[in-house]
Formats: sequence, structure tokens, C-alpha cells
Amino acid sequence: MEFAMTSPPTDAAYRTTERTYPTRGRDRASYDRELVHAILDGAYVCHLGFVRDGAPVVLPTLYGRVGETLYVHGSTGSRPLRMAGRTDPGLEVCLTVTHVDGLVLARSAFHHSMNYRSVVVHGTARQVTDPQEKREALDALVDHVVPGRSHDSRPANDKELAATAVLRLDLDEVSAKVRTGGPNDDPEDSSLPYWAGVVPLVRGHGNPVPADDLDPSVALPGYLAAF
Amino acid sequence: MEFAMTSPPTDAAYRTTERTYPTRGRDRASYDRELVHAILDGAYVCHLGFVRDGAPVVLPTLYGRVGETLYVHGSTGSRPLRMAGRTDPGLEVCLTVTHVDGLVLARSAFHHSMNYRSVVVHGTARQVTDPQEKREALDALVDHVVPGRSHDSRPANDKELAATAVLRLDLDEVSAKVRTGGPNDDPEDSSLPYWAGVVPLVRGHGNPVPADDLDPSVALPGYLAAF
Repeated sequence: MEFAMTSPPTDAAYRTTERTYPTRGRDRASYDRELVHAILDGAYVCHLGFVRDGAPVVLPTLYGRVGETLYVHGSTGSRPLRMAGRTDPGLEVCLTVTHVDGLVLARSAFHHSMNYRSVVVHGTARQVTDPQEKREALDALVDHVVPGRSHDSRPANDKELAATAVLRLDLDEVSAKVRTGGPNDDPEDSSLPYWAGVVPLVRGHGNPVPADDLDPSVALPGYLAAF
Repeated sequence: MEFAMTSPPTDAAYRTTERTYPTRGRDRASYDRELVHAILDGAYVCHLGFVRDGAPVVLPTLYGRVGETLYVHGSTGSRPLRMAGRTDPGLEVCLTVTHVDGLVLARSAFHHSMNYRSVVVHGTARQVTDPQEKREALDALVDHVVPGRSHDSRPANDKELAATAVLRLDLDEVSAKVRTGGPNDDPEDSSLPYWAGVVPLVRGHGNPVPADDLDPSVALPGYLAAF
């Protein structure tokens, strides 16, 4: 599939820009909204990058998605949250989410690789000031960890809301990259006596472990029984 | 455990600096070399952050460790590798590795969290120009994916070596963060009728899938049989 270096957004795809247009691995790149949403919704943690005193900082953090907006949150005292609040119009960030799906073993050391799915979002993270949007964002963050959980926990009170800063990042300058399949050995290497193929990586949930002080009459909720 | 904001390195611990000293979650921070090595050695992908045209970029990439040095690699045409080669003394980076170990469900939405182990490395990534170090770095990258694999695959030839750029990043300004255990609900919330506890996340290997064109006489090597 060929992409123009810059193209406008459509209902099905994000726009392409100079910085989301791949310099390499063009066949692995995608701007498909459904694919991007699926990659974002299936991971627990993103890596949020920003610039502090001219140097890059990359921190793992939770996030949530509402339509075409991502939310991250943190203490009002944490660095990126404070920086976003001080900066107008916000903090330039790069938010990246990666699933590692398999180890790709080739006959040649050179062609060793990983199967993966990643999304990179560039943009300006802005502090959420509207109280209603802030509540919805926090619900989205909790529901991202366990769908439905925001309705089965105590909502944030005013003090907690005041202590929490939420940043919004619109999904506008976005790209996905996906590698699947077996090794891409050079044809002349195919008869070398080395095993080649893929070792899949699988992720699952262990049995839920109740808190030490959990009231024994509180049953495991249905949304966790599936785990 | 209390740390000074800046302290020199020791045999057991990395130095602390203004930017590795946590503004929050001080009890989760560690500078222990063994812990850092274990976190780095147990993950497949890091998130490498750098600054391009003043904006942050965060990309997932493979890495390898040799003692107190990390190596990342890529095509000589990829952006960070080109940038590191053009810049003297190198490219300012932040390299972050994160394991997500569990979902922490509290009675209050506010105290929902994740159990995780992460390492953040700040420093200057420099192009490796010494051919011997470059070969050893590439071996470390392959062995990071599957220990022992570099001796059971075809080594890179001169053309492949020339097409591959390798960056080195010394483990000098490094910190780890670890969260373990159950939810930290406020005492007054402990009798609320919501389930609370931890859902562990587990990661494993699926059965190795041979390449379509693998010679059937090539047996699965011992280092993969354990998967």
C-alpha cells in the first residue's frame, strides 16, 4: 500500500504528515483508525515522551481513550502534568503503545526481529479544566484497566479530583506499525542448518488475588470472573 | 529508604541526579544495579525517546546489554541512528523499559493502579564505530531475544554490518521504579461493597512455529524446547 507523504484525514484513516510518514518499513505502516483504536485499547500502559530542559523524558503511564481523544492523568505535582499546566497551549508529547507478539528467529543474525503492533501519537497534551470532561476522562482511565469498573468503585471526591491532573491528547497525527509472519531470510540462507520461525508471546491474566482486608462477603464481580 | 537528591555511584547502586530523583513515589524508586539489570534483561522491547526538531519522539526498539552498556541498532537510514551519527558527541536519549505485572483494583476509583517494574536511562547515545564492539553489540542484541542464539545463526556479513548502525548508551544516570502489592485504599473505604485486589498479568511463550520453508531435518534447538 502506498501513502502520500502528506494526506488529509478521512473517516477511515488518519492524515499522514511528514513525521508520521515512515522513512523505512513503509509496508508495515498504517493510518487506519480501527487498527489504531484496537492497538490502543488492547494495551495497559503507554510510554509518554516529552522534552524537559531540552532533553527527552519517557515515562510509562496509564491512559484511556474516548473516541478520538486519549487521556493520561497524574498527580498535580508530577513533572509532565505540571509542565503541561504551565505551558500554553500545552505540552508537546509523543505517546507510544506497543504490543510484542512474537520473537522472529531467522537463519541469519541480521534478520532476527520481533512481531509487534505499535501506535505512535504526536501532539499537544492539554490540561483538562472542564469538570465534566475530567470525570469522564477518569472513568475512561479506570475502564481502560477493567471495562465496567468505573461503575463498580467509589467515584473520585472533590479532594481527589483536585489532586489529579488530566491531560488530553487528540488522535490527529497518528500512525501504526505492524509486523507479522515468519522470518525474512535471504533465499541463499534458506538451507542453512539453523532453526527458523516464530516463538509467539502470549499474555494472560492470573487468578484475581483479593486484598488482605477484603470483606469475605464481597464476591468476585462478573467482569473479573472471565479472567 | 531515603536517597539524597544527588549521590555518587557505588558498586551496588547508580548515582542519583536531579533528574533521576523522583518528585513523587519516592518509596518506589531504586538505584540498585542488580534490580536494574534484572528489569532490563527480562523485557524484549524498550521505548527510546529523543528530540527531533524540538519535539519528542518515542519509538519501540530492541536492545541488548553488555555489562553497564546498552546497545540499540537499526538501519543506517533510520532517523535516530542518522541523527546520532550527525550529532557530536551523540544523541540525547531517554530509554525506558517497563514490565506490567498486575492490575490493582481499589474500592475507590482514585486508588486504581498497576503493579509494574520500570527502568529509565538518561544519557547520550553514541554510534559504535569499532568493528569488534559492533559485532559484540549485535551478538548481544540477538542473545537478548533468545540467550545463546547468536552462536546458532549465520553471523552478519560485511554488507549487513555496513547497513546496520549501532548506538551505545552507558548505564550511568539510571533509576528503577517498582510497585508491588495490593490496593492502597483509604481506611474509611475498606468496608465499601466493592471487590478489591490484584489481577496478575502473566506472560509466556507459545509453541514455536517453524518457518514455512524450514528444512524438516532441522530439529528444534534445546534453547527453544524450554519454551
